[in-house]
Amino acid sequence: MTAEPDDSFHVFDTTLRDGAQREGINLTVADKLTIARHLDDFGVGFIEGGWPGANPRDTEFFARAAKELEFQHATLVAFGATRRPNSKAADDPQVKALLDSGAPVITIVAKSHDRHVELALRTTLEENLEMVRDTVSHLVAQDRRVFVDCEHFFDGYRANAEYATAVVRAAHEAGASVVVLCDTNGGMLPAQVQAVTGLVLADTGARLGIHAQDDTGCAVANTLAAVDAGATHVQCTANGYGERVGNSNLFPVVAALELKHGRRVLPEGALGEMTRISHAIAEVVNLPSATHQPYVGVSAFAHKAGLHASAIKVDPDLYQHIDPELVGNTMRMLVSDMAGRASIELKGKELGIDLGGDRELVGRVVERVKEREAKGYTYEAADASFALLLRAEVDRRTRRFFRTESWRVITEDRPDGTHANEATVKMWAKGERIVATAEGNGPVNALDRALLTALEQIYPQLAHFALVDYKVRILEGRSGSDSTTRVLITTTDGSAEWSTVGVADNVIAASWQALDDAYTFGLLRVGLDPQE
Amino acid sequence: MTAEPDDSFHVFDTTLRDGAQREGINLTVADKLTIARHLDDFGVGFIEGGWPGANPRDTEFFARAAKELEFQHATLVAFGATRRPNSKAADDPQVKALLDSGAPVITIVAKSHDRHVELALRTTLEENLEMVRDTVSHLVAQDRRVFVDCEHFFDGYRANAEYATAVVRAAHEAGASVVVLCDTNGGMLPAQVQAVTGLVLADTGARLGIHAQDDTGCAVANTLAAVDAGATHVQCTANGYGERVGNSNLFPVVAALELKHGRRVLPEGALGEMTRISHAIAEVVNLPSATHQPYVGVSAFAHKAGLHASAIKVDPDLYQHIDPELVGNTMRMLVSDMAGRASIELKGKELGIDLGGDRELVGRVVERVKEREAKGYTYEAADASFALLLRAEVDRRTRRFFRTESWRVITEDRPDGTHANEATVKMWAKGERIVATAEGNGPVNALDRALLTALEQIYPQLAHFALVDYKVRILEGRSGSDSTTRVLITTTDGSAEWSTVGVADNVIAASWQALDDAYTFGLLRVGLDPQE
Repeated sequence: MTAEPDDSFHVFDTTLRDGAQREGINLTVADKLTIARHLDDFGVGFIEGGWPGANPRDTEFFARAAKELEFQHATLVAFGATRRPNSKAADDPQVKALLDSGAPVITIVAKSHDRHVELALRTTLEENLEMVRDTVSHLVAQDRRVFVDCEHFFDGYRANAEYATAVVRAAHEAGASVVVLCDTNGGMLPAQVQAVTGLVLADTGARLGIHAQDDTGCAVANTLAAVDAGATHVQCTANGYGERVGNSNLFPVVAALELKHGRRVLPEGALGEMTRISHAIAEVVNLPSATHQPYVGVSAFAHKAGLHASAIKVDPDLYQHIDPELVGNTMRMLVSDMAGRASIELKGKELGIDLGGDRELVGRVVERVKEREAKGYTYEAADASFALLLRAEVDRRTRRFFRTESWRVITEDRPDGTHANEATVKMWAKGERIVATAEGNGPVNALDRALLTALEQIYPQLAHFALVDYKVRILEGRSGSDSTTRVLITTTDGSAEWSTVGVADNVIAASWQALDDAYTFGLLRVGLDPQE
Repeated sequence: MTAEPDDSFHVFDTTLRDGAQREGINLTVADKLTIARHLDDFGVGFIEGGWPGANPRDTEFFARAAKELEFQHATLVAFGATRRPNSKAADDPQVKALLDSGAPVITIVAKSHDRHVELALRTTLEENLEMVRDTVSHLVAQDRRVFVDCEHFFDGYRANAEYATAVVRAAHEAGASVVVLCDTNGGMLPAQVQAVTGLVLADTGARLGIHAQDDTGCAVANTLAAVDAGATHVQCTANGYGERVGNSNLFPVVAALELKHGRRVLPEGALGEMTRISHAIAEVVNLPSATHQPYVGVSAFAHKAGLHASAIKVDPDLYQHIDPELVGNTMRMLVSDMAGRASIELKGKELGIDLGGDRELVGRVVERVKEREAKGYTYEAADASFALLLRAEVDRRTRRFFRTESWRVITEDRPDGTHANEATVKMWAKGERIVATAEGNGPVNALDRALLTALEQIYPQLAHFALVDYKVRILEGRSGSDSTTRVLITTTDGSAEWSTVGVADNVIAASWQALDDAYTFGLLRVGLDPQE
């Protein structure tokens, strides 16, 4: 195996074009440049950047990409369509914009379903073939590498196999280096994809690619089925983002190819970065990382069942299909009332608290977790709050660095349209009473600042602490603003991060609990000993 | 086709057992009873309720199920394990608990991977076979129908095909009516599942089932691959809930079988209830419905790309693999700055506002959407706010029923640990100044009540209005409580529901905007005409 995969197999990413069609995604040019860098880091062979000319943002992306992006692994691709009916590719402004983008590779979408040619393009079947030939050969003559996406290929093949195959042949003969069979509506199942891909390969001899949408929940399997049938180019998107249900997900596809098929498709070491890259891209598109995504989800190697936890104490491979480190992920034991004793013990070990042997103690912890989870707490996502609960049971008392007398927050909208948020806290710590007031740009922010202002007077170690993430969940979804609220907070001291949970009938009170746990855990972490 | 499917194909649901292993799910007995009713409504053949005896909650579930559940379609199943090594099934308390549960069908999990027998069960390969034979025949003798889950079957088959097959044969010969091949670690791909299932069927003649986990992202495809190879029993969970990544998702599996394979597996008409059932179960387990789930996700038939929107104006089938109504879902046009004119026009039509022909107006709307989305607004999930934006552009002015002078919210934690939330609003409507104060159980609830108290004095129509859902999203995830906040609110007047959005640096101010839009839209809906 060499460090860099060769041209014999293409990992082609279309997050920036097709992925951006996902509901809820709205990318700026800067976002697109950042995502392109992540994808190149990961080592994909091709990055489709958008449709220059069709969309001012995409035109700007290609202009800035030419100046700002220096890829280590990837080649940039521009996407466009065949020329208009009854014209010349050389005169088509849309085709010209593709050349002007400067991208060395161009993907051209072509209709391959007879009905779409007639209904959507409103031209003849023969003219559509001519559009493919003319556009491909024009771009090839301009020294571009051309891939042709045959839109609605599988539906088209079912309706008129001869015509769909003729489109593949026209693209291939005109000089397209790959012809991509697209399941545009995503309605196919793997058996169909495999059969049709095999037939088309035998019929045309063209190099084939696959572009699958996930409408049947089979996009990854459809992609792999096409590869089984001889396709050597897979079009995917990071985290499966895309129109409707989404596209074939890049991460499980490359993981299956490398780890299950034993085929090298990424540079050496890339797979170990997969979890990080997936989460980084989710952050740029501003969507939560899908927790249950295969391989890279935070739950992908998380174990809850008591049965599994007992077996994992014997050997982790018993309930994991791969070593999570191969994809940069980690195994996690979940704490919940289903978990049972084995998980609580393993979790304690993970947190550096040995419960080994003390059956009565573990039983008390299980009971306490059950009781709190019934109220809406969740310890699966709040390790630091769980560690505090565990310590309280080990010590048989809650040890506190500070005690709250009361707090108050005022949020005010003024006639000039500006807002003010002011919080006052009254606390006790080391026998002293402290009153502090602070402002913030929101009520929780004001409260956090007031609490820090108060506590810093006693514990200067807190000066480096900062909130890095704040999540709110309404637990009873159908009762509007009356509901129980759960807040999860992530706090950092600059080196480590920890998460805490609060639950109350009120977002501010829930935030207060999570802040209290966050600073208590942080003070324990720096080695301080609580006074009371 | 008959109204009810016969025994020749089994749709077996294990949401209540395996599904409950998902991170974040924590079911009460009442939740389990409610989910069982939904699954029976949907028409699955078997509902696995849990492991009686292993878990007090599951024991209670079976006790209550016997009294409280009357299934129209389903048969209740209890799950358990083979008897302990070197004992008798008739003397095993765990086996006795299964009989005591009263369930007419029992699923027994058996080890079929040689290494697991030795490492986890710590017994001999022969004794494991004897455990299968003894447990199955004992239960059959007690007049129970028995299914045997062969745990780790596919990994076991790869390690020792002869032994894995011997376990299937032992179960079959002892009287199990289905032997289920389980991909417990979820590492398989469809080609492997299909090949192995075919070989085992030929070798043993047993009736086979499939239980797939989704760790490669191929659980649905693996389930269908086993059916292609002759399996006639599929084990799935609603919404794919389950350990780690999850289980094979019931909904795309039954949809593929009925709509793609043309095989009737549910009672007549059931498929049209699928979207409703999926969302209802998500609500019971208290997880947000997966928006991008195949067939039933709110985005499953949502169209954003300008190219698609233009084609859909011609014919919706051009970009949909099935008619969404077949699964009880609906097509949606998304409004976003990528959408272009065609989507805005279609969306206007959906909202009863005809923009047809006015290119300049549509252009203004597109611009305004772009500008607002750049600030963090999202109109994809806030139809009512989009309708207000559209109206403002059509009328060339914002028409308002009321104007805010100022508001203030105070949240206070008192020394006794209780909380108080008090909001005061100062408003103008129909030339009158109104000041109102209200309390609530949270700051947004207090604000909502104060606003309603004020407005009801002028618009008694508002008395029926109520908030039914409230969602908060922090837009810049890595800056803690300093971030921009987006609030989505769903409001009802008892008959219809509508959603609105607010964005601000502050959760209270963002909520205020969304409330303002919610009541403005509601007053327009009842036919009132704004005064200013």
